[in-house]
Amino acid sequence: MRPIEGLTVLVDLDTRQVLEISDKGGSIPIPKAANTDYRYSAQKPNQVLKLLKPISIEQPNGPSFTVEDDHLVKWANWEFHLKPDARAGVIVSRAKVRDPNTGEFRDVMYKGFTSELFVPYMDPTDAWYFKTYMDAGEYGFGLQAMPLEPLNDCPRNAHYMDGVFAAADGRPYVRSNMVCVFESYAGDIAWRHTECPITGMQIREVRPKVTLVVRMAASVANYDYIIDWEFQTDGLIRVKVGLSGILMVKGTSYENVNQVSSPENLHGTLLSENVIGVIHDHYVTFHLDMDVDGSDNSFLKVNLQRVQNSPNETPRKSYLKATKTVAKTEKDAQVKLKLYDPSEFHVINPTKRTRVGNPVGYKLVPGGTAASLLDLDDPPQKRGAFTNNQIWVTPYNRSEQWAGGLLVCQSQGEDTLAVWSDRDRPIENKDIVLWYTLGFHHVPCQEDFPIMPTVSSSFDLKPVNFFESNPILRTPPNVDTDLPVCVAAASA
Amino acid sequence: MRPIEGLTVLVDLDTRQVLEISDKGGSIPIPKAANTDYRYSAQKPNQVLKLLKPISIEQPNGPSFTVEDDHLVKWANWEFHLKPDARAGVIVSRAKVRDPNTGEFRDVMYKGFTSELFVPYMDPTDAWYFKTYMDAGEYGFGLQAMPLEPLNDCPRNAHYMDGVFAAADGRPYVRSNMVCVFESYAGDIAWRHTECPITGMQIREVRPKVTLVVRMAASVANYDYIIDWEFQTDGLIRVKVGLSGILMVKGTSYENVNQVSSPENLHGTLLSENVIGVIHDHYVTFHLDMDVDGSDNSFLKVNLQRVQNSPNETPRKSYLKATKTVAKTEKDAQVKLKLYDPSEFHVINPTKRTRVGNPVGYKLVPGGTAASLLDLDDPPQKRGAFTNNQIWVTPYNRSEQWAGGLLVCQSQGEDTLAVWSDRDRPIENKDIVLWYTLGFHHVPCQEDFPIMPTVSSSFDLKPVNFFESNPILRTPPNVDTDLPVCVAAASA
Repeated sequence: MRPIEGLTVLVDLDTRQVLEISDKGGSIPIPKAANTDYRYSAQKPNQVLKLLKPISIEQPNGPSFTVEDDHLVKWANWEFHLKPDARAGVIVSRAKVRDPNTGEFRDVMYKGFTSELFVPYMDPTDAWYFKTYMDAGEYGFGLQAMPLEPLNDCPRNAHYMDGVFAAADGRPYVRSNMVCVFESYAGDIAWRHTECPITGMQIREVRPKVTLVVRMAASVANYDYIIDWEFQTDGLIRVKVGLSGILMVKGTSYENVNQVSSPENLHGTLLSENVIGVIHDHYVTFHLDMDVDGSDNSFLKVNLQRVQNSPNETPRKSYLKATKTVAKTEKDAQVKLKLYDPSEFHVINPTKRTRVGNPVGYKLVPGGTAASLLDLDDPPQKRGAFTNNQIWVTPYNRSEQWAGGLLVCQSQGEDTLAVWSDRDRPIENKDIVLWYTLGFHHVPCQEDFPIMPTVSSSFDLKPVNFFESNPILRTPPNVDTDLPVCVAAASA
Repeated sequence: MRPIEGLTVLVDLDTRQVLEISDKGGSIPIPKAANTDYRYSAQKPNQVLKLLKPISIEQPNGPSFTVEDDHLVKWANWEFHLKPDARAGVIVSRAKVRDPNTGEFRDVMYKGFTSELFVPYMDPTDAWYFKTYMDAGEYGFGLQAMPLEPLNDCPRNAHYMDGVFAAADGRPYVRSNMVCVFESYAGDIAWRHTECPITGMQIREVRPKVTLVVRMAASVANYDYIIDWEFQTDGLIRVKVGLSGILMVKGTSYENVNQVSSPENLHGTLLSENVIGVIHDHYVTFHLDMDVDGSDNSFLKVNLQRVQNSPNETPRKSYLKATKTVAKTEKDAQVKLKLYDPSEFHVINPTKRTRVGNPVGYKLVPGGTAASLLDLDDPPQKRGAFTNNQIWVTPYNRSEQWAGGLLVCQSQGEDTLAVWSDRDRPIENKDIVLWYTLGFHHVPCQEDFPIMPTVSSSFDLKPVNFFESNPILRTPPNVDTDLPVCVAAASA
C-alpha cells in the first residue's frame, strides 16, 4: 500500500544487465502507512471489533469422509483423487459418483484444474502497461499457495494435505497444509416441498444440504485467490473462486477527488490519500476433462429461441423452444455467452441413454462472469487469448493442458487454447476437454483498502439426465437426537 | 406427477357458470405413481440412502442476534425490521449498518421485498398457453408460505417468526414459523492475506465469514421458492432465490424419446414414462427502496469501455476505462445487462462524500440471470412487462409497490413497472427505488423428478465507497479456546 510510483528497472535476465532505469514518479509522494497494518496483533485493543460470539460446524461422530493413501477422497456418494500441483494449485481427478439405483460408481470428470489466470491492469502508462499477469504459468499457482490457517481458512473439522514440490535448486520441499478438505453445512436446503393445505394433509419434506469442500488459497504476491471445489450429494460440482488480499495500487499526488479535473483518467479509484486502486480484470480458466460415463463424449448446445405463433393457433404470440445441436468441430464450441440468446451447455455420452431415452450428461452452468474487452491484437490479449471466449471444447491432447501455453513467460500467444481450437478438430463422440473461464471486472472501492473483503464467483457442473431421477430423494432429514450436545469451552 | 392431460374447464367466477369443457387428452394415459412418493415415511428401509453423519452449526454462547418487539433484528453491525407479508412474503425495512469509525448507524435500505414473480410456461397449446403465473399478485407469496421445518429448513440455532394474516372470510389467522432468522457459517473466508515468504516474515491473517440469514419458503402449489436475505458484516446484503419442489408436468403418450419424431416439439423433457417437464422461466422482481445515508439518492452507471491507444503512446493497444453517468430520468435507468458492454450500477448519495471525495454508495451486483425472450406484445409478457429490463429505477411513489400492478388477476399490463418507468420522471437526487429481476430459464431434466434439488441464484447489494476502508479489518480471528466442546447425543 506504499508504492514508489513511476520507478521501473529493465533488466536482461540472461546477461544480468540493467538496461534502463526510468523514474517518472519523482513528484509523487509515497503514501503514509496510516491504517494499512492489517495484522490483528497490531490493532490497539480499543479498536478491535468483536461483532460475534463463537460459531462452529460440529460433527459429533466425526467427518463423513476419508482420505486414503493421502490422495483418494471418499465422501458420501463421491470418490475422487486430489493432488497438490506446483502450477495448477489443486488437481481433482477421476471424480466418480455412485448411482443410487445400481450402487455403482460412474465416471464424471477425468481431470479438472485451474489451467491459467490472466490479470490485465487497465493503465497504459510506462510503469503499468506490462502488468498483465498470467499467474499459473508465470509464478505457479501452487507454488504461491501458503499454508492454510486452521479454524479461519477452513473450519474445525478440516483435513489438511501437504504439497511436495521442487525448489529452484531442485531440492524437494514440503508446503504444509496447502490444501484442506472439509464438510460444510451453511443451513441450506438440498430439496424441499410442502403441500398446500388444500389437500387436507400436512405434508412437509425437507432435506438439509451438506457439501464437501476442497480448498486452496494462493497468495500471488498482493492478491489472494481462494479456489474451492465443492461436491454436492445431488451430483453437482461447484467451482468457486474467491478474491481477497491486497490491491495493486498506484501512487498519485492527489489527496482528494476534488483535485482531479478528469477522474476517469485516473485509471482507477482514489482509495486513500495518494493511493489509487487501478482498474483490472481477473480471468480464471479451468481445464475440465469430462468423462461422462466413459471418455468418449459430445458437446451439446441446447439453445432457447423464441417461436412466433400465428394468431389463429393460440392466444399466445410466442413461446421458447429448445433446439439441440451437437458440436461437430472445435469452432462450433467457441462460445460467447449471450443473455438474449441463451443456451445450456451439455457434455453428453451419446452412446448411453436413460430409461426413457435421454442421453446422459453433465451441464456447465456459468455463474456471474465477465468477458475480456481488450483489443484482440493487443499483446497481452494475444497471450491471454484463451479468454476470447468463455467456453471452448477441444479433443484431449496431452500437450494441451495449459491454456496460455506450456511456456508463458516469453509467449506471444503462439501456443494458446485459442490457437489449438482454431485447428477446428473433430470433437464429436471423442475424449473431449471443456474449458470455462470465470471473469471479474474489478473497479476498486475504498472498502478494498487495505485488504479487500472476499469477492467470489462460481460455476457448476450439474448432472442433466445423468441420473434416472433425483439421486438424493431417499436421504433422511435431520433429527434432533442426531445432533451434538455442546458446551462452551472452559476458557470462554 | 400424475396429470390428467388436456382437460380444461372454463368457469365464469362472477356468474359461477361453467362456460366450456375441453377434453383433448383422452388418448393420453395418466402416468403411473411409481417412484413419485417423496415422503421419508413412505420409503422402504432398504431404499434409504444414509450418506452422511450428523453435522450442525453450534454456538456455545448462544446466537449473536436479538429480535426485539418481534420485528427489530439486531445482529453484529446491522439493524433492520422484519415483517411477514401476505403478498410479498417477507419485507425487510429500515436496514442500517454501523460505521466502524463513528459507531453510528447509517441508512442503507428503507424497504426491500419480492414485488412480483412471473413464470411463463413455454407451451402454446390449449391446456397450457395460459400458464403464465404471477405468484405474488395472484396467490400471495406470503399466503403460500407454509411453516418452516426446524433443523431442515433452518439450522438448530434459528429463531422463528409467525405471520398473522386475514383469511378469505376476514378472520385473522396465524401462520406459525413462517420466517426464520439464523446465523450461518459455511467455513468461508471474510478476508485473508498471506505474505509471500520473500519478505522473510510469516504473515498470515484470515477472518472467518459468518452471516445472518432471514429465510422464507413459499410453496406456490407445486413449486417451492426459498427466499434468503443474507447480511454480511462487511456491509453486503445478498438476496438469494432457491427453487425446489415439484415441476409442473404434462401428460404424454410417449414412454421413450425414441418414439418421438421431433423431440423439440415436446415443449420440454421426457422425465419418466408419460411425463413431460415443460420448459418455463422464473422471474423474481425485487423492490429495493435504497436510502444510502438518507433518502435522496442518484443512480450512477459506471460503464467500462475499451480505449484504443495510438502506437507511439504505449506498447499496449487498448485498456478499459470507467465512465460514470448519473441517470437523469427513468429511461436512463432501463438496463438490459450486456456481457460485452459491462457496467456497475451504483446508488449513491450525491451530497455525501468520503474523506478522499468519493460519493458514498451501494452497488447492485447482478448474479447469474436470464432475460425474458417472449414477444413484447404477447399478452403474458405485457402483464409481466416488468421483466423487459433487468434493472429499473423509479422515483418513490407509494402506489408503485407491485411491479405487475396492484390488481394482477385481470391485468392487461396497464399498471406495470414498465408503464410507470416510461413516464420518464426525474430520478436524480430523489428518493429512488431500484428494481432488479433475477431470472432462470428452466429446461427440466430427470434429476428434477419427482422433487427437484434446489437451484439457486442471487444478487448482492454491496457497499462501494460507503465505508472509508474495509469495515471488518479489526475483527478478531477464530481461536480454538472459543469453540464449543461437543459430544454425540446420548441416543446416537
